[in-house]
Amino acid sequence: VNVISLTTDFGTQDWFVGTMKGVILRVCPRARIVDITHETPAGDIRAGAFALAASCRFFPKGTVHLAVVDPGVGGARGAIAVRTADYFFAGPDNGVLSLALARERIKAIHRLENEDCFLSRVSRTFHGRDIFAPVAARLCGGLPIRKVGPRQKGFVGLRWPEPQMRRGEIEGEVVYIDRFGNLITNIRGEALRGLDSGRCRLIVRGTRVIPMGTHYEAVGNGRAVAVVGSSDVVEIAVNGGSAAREFGLGIGSRVRIRLAG
Amino acid sequence: VNVISLTTDFGTQDWFVGTMKGVILRVCPRARIVDITHETPAGDIRAGAFALAASCRFFPKGTVHLAVVDPGVGGARGAIAVRTADYFFAGPDNGVLSLALARERIKAIHRLENEDCFLSRVSRTFHGRDIFAPVAARLCGGLPIRKVGPRQKGFVGLRWPEPQMRRGEIEGEVVYIDRFGNLITNIRGEALRGLDSGRCRLIVRGTRVIPMGTHYEAVGNGRAVAVVGSSDVVEIAVNGGSAAREFGLGIGSRVRIRLAG
Amino acid sequence: VNVISLTTDFGTQDWFVGTMKGVILRVCPRARIVDITHETPAGDIRAGAFALAASCRFFPKGTVHLAVVDPGVGGARGAIAVRTADYFFAGPDNGVLSLALARERIKAIHRLENEDCFLSRVSRTFHGRDIFAPVAARLCGGLPIRKVGPRQKGFVGLRWPEPQMRRGEIEGEVVYIDRFGNLITNIRGEALRGLDSGRCRLIVRGTRVIPMGTHYEAVGNGRAVAVVGSSDVVEIAVNGGSAAREFGLGIGSRVRIRLAG
Repeated sequence: VNVISLTTDFGTQDWFVGTMKGVILRVCPRARIVDITHETPAGDIRAGAFALAASCRFFPKGTVHLAVVDPGVGGARGAIAVRTADYFFAGPDNGVLSLALARERIKAIHRLENEDCFLSRVSRTFHGRDIFAPVAARLCGGLPIRKVGPRQKGFVGLRWPEPQMRRGEIEGEVVYIDRFGNLITNIRGEALRGLDSGRCRLIVRGTRVIPMGTHYEAVGNGRAVAVVGSSDVVEIAVNGGSAAREFGLGIGSRVRIRLAG
Repeated sequence: VNVISLTTDFGTQDWFVGTMKGVILRVCPRARIVDITHETPAGDIRAGAFALAASCRFFPKGTVHLAVVDPGVGGARGAIAVRTADYFFAGPDNGVLSLALARERIKAIHRLENEDCFLSRVSRTFHGRDIFAPVAARLCGGLPIRKVGPRQKGFVGLRWPEPQMRRGEIEGEVVYIDRFGNLITNIRGEALRGLDSGRCRLIVRGTRVIPMGTHYEAVGNGRAVAVVGSSDVVEIAVNGGSAAREFGLGIGSRVRIRLAG
Repeated sequence: VNVISLTTDFGTQDWFVGTMKGVILRVCPRARIVDITHETPAGDIRAGAFALAASCRFFPKGTVHLAVVDPGVGGARGAIAVRTADYFFAGPDNGVLSLALARERIKAIHRLENEDCFLSRVSRTFHGRDIFAPVAARLCGGLPIRKVGPRQKGFVGLRWPEPQMRRGEIEGEVVYIDRFGNLITNIRGEALRGLDSGRCRLIVRGTRVIPMGTHYEAVGNGRAVAVVGSSDVVEIAVNGGSAAREFGLGIGSRVRIRLAG
């Protein structure tokens, strides 16, 4: 299919992303490049990993997913390409691929060590351009993954907070805040399966109670609602507003759901 | 031509737009996707409608214009696809398509109700991914529009302020502010046709008089000028500066043009 | 190769860039469009020129590089297309192409004067859409450059600060600040060739001494380091932070490197 997705923290104000795309098209002229995001906060591996994991399975089979959130560029961290049942992934081996890979059937993991796959001059500050873009373009063009370097066994993971089950409650936390100010938690929708979600309640800041609903407009304008969102996790929204602003919560803030059968 | 344009308020910091593009390429691998904007203020149907109307006619014939500014997602608002003489349009039936459609020759309007055209699982919070992207991709791939659902007669409009003619004056208002701080009004350039625009004057805040000119540099650096801009409406600019900041005006602010033959 | 790169100050919140892309695809349906950046500060010709020069040579041969940072649109400034040994360039003749062209082997420079290459109606406020996009699309489609208008000899340059050599020192200045807060200077890496960079020191604000290193992680977290970055010029970084914030420096701030053999 020749699709390459890009997830980076390079922003769009400089020439970094455009340069990577130039390199990709030089190596694989028929590549079709899709931006997932370039506005991952600088160096925030978890946010980049979350964006990639939330979107990668909506792409055509065979897509090469390239993620470069790489605060350790030029240092000791490794760089890998991974073949799964449906996709390829490439990026620094620092956890940025790990949330996506956790849901994939992994076929092979290879270290990026074959310099023939890189640009002829490799800087120590911009591997996105010099190593990752040309490698992704070669995979997109059909290069067998074993050519990029030797196999390795695992990959670096992220510490990811897991929700805790209590008597009649689940305690989780906010793991991502989107542009609408929706507070996305680590509580999966399946944890509520079989329950009467209309009677479940979400509690923030100890005492503020938010009803569960099926969609943002399930409550009146300016009112808060907790929904199982499009990524199958519980998120808190304010209809027509920003839950992040309304509740003053951030990444890591605790939330509880009081379960009701 | 296989072109799909996208106009949304999803922003580019999250994975929403990239995911829609992944879905589009999965359904229609030869689609060519062009972003109009994703930075429509969250939920601002009028701003999204304005951006689409200002740009859609510059695209190749046959383009599928998809606009998703959708504060009522998952609720009672309808969703439509429209075939016009030159284009297709798709989006929620909430007015976001209406300014563009007002200038088109409409051939058919259909409700999006055929679930075979959607993703197999449809969330109630992200129809951009689950309904609109796959429908736009199918239209791009040649699916006859009648397959997306039953015909309907009209579409939801927006209340759009019309300028008022007075003795020797036109009164209008600011309807859009662009990134340069240019104040774009609802007064069409043709309203000035046949007049001596060099002697017309635009008045803001009751007393501040701004000359008409043909282009931004028609006045000295830092000076204000009113021009018939690239969208054929009167806009107020400050050469080398921001008219929005200079005059402290916003959307809805009144302006008058004193006409001179 | 049919690649067109775009560098503008149009931002992405309005419809300007999307409209240019619509025009390009109408004129040259097989064009492949790559954004270098659209977030050049409004009217900042130098910043646009720097972004283009830093990235253009990573694109496939034959790419048409279009740069529109054009505060004088509609006024007296010229507009040009340039053929070099490897690329085409097009844009206003105001210096925005000049840093890139300084490193190219120039074959021909032509004024954009043939109205057959433009849109049929040309505004005086949006030449990006009406003149530059269609001309770039025609060059991309194979139109010989002499068809766009008559030849001219030179092009407008930018005053660009050159670093000064002193006894044992180079004095340069900050010419660009990227999204990570890295301070990019005008001191080329080759100026340090043959020296023991481990013993060279960079000095800012008269007294603050920053060690040279090979990559950002060469120093501890939160520490400053000067590296020869990916554009082959000296830049100042803070590992895991922002050098611009740390040092309070901006464009034009002086820096010195004390050389050591």
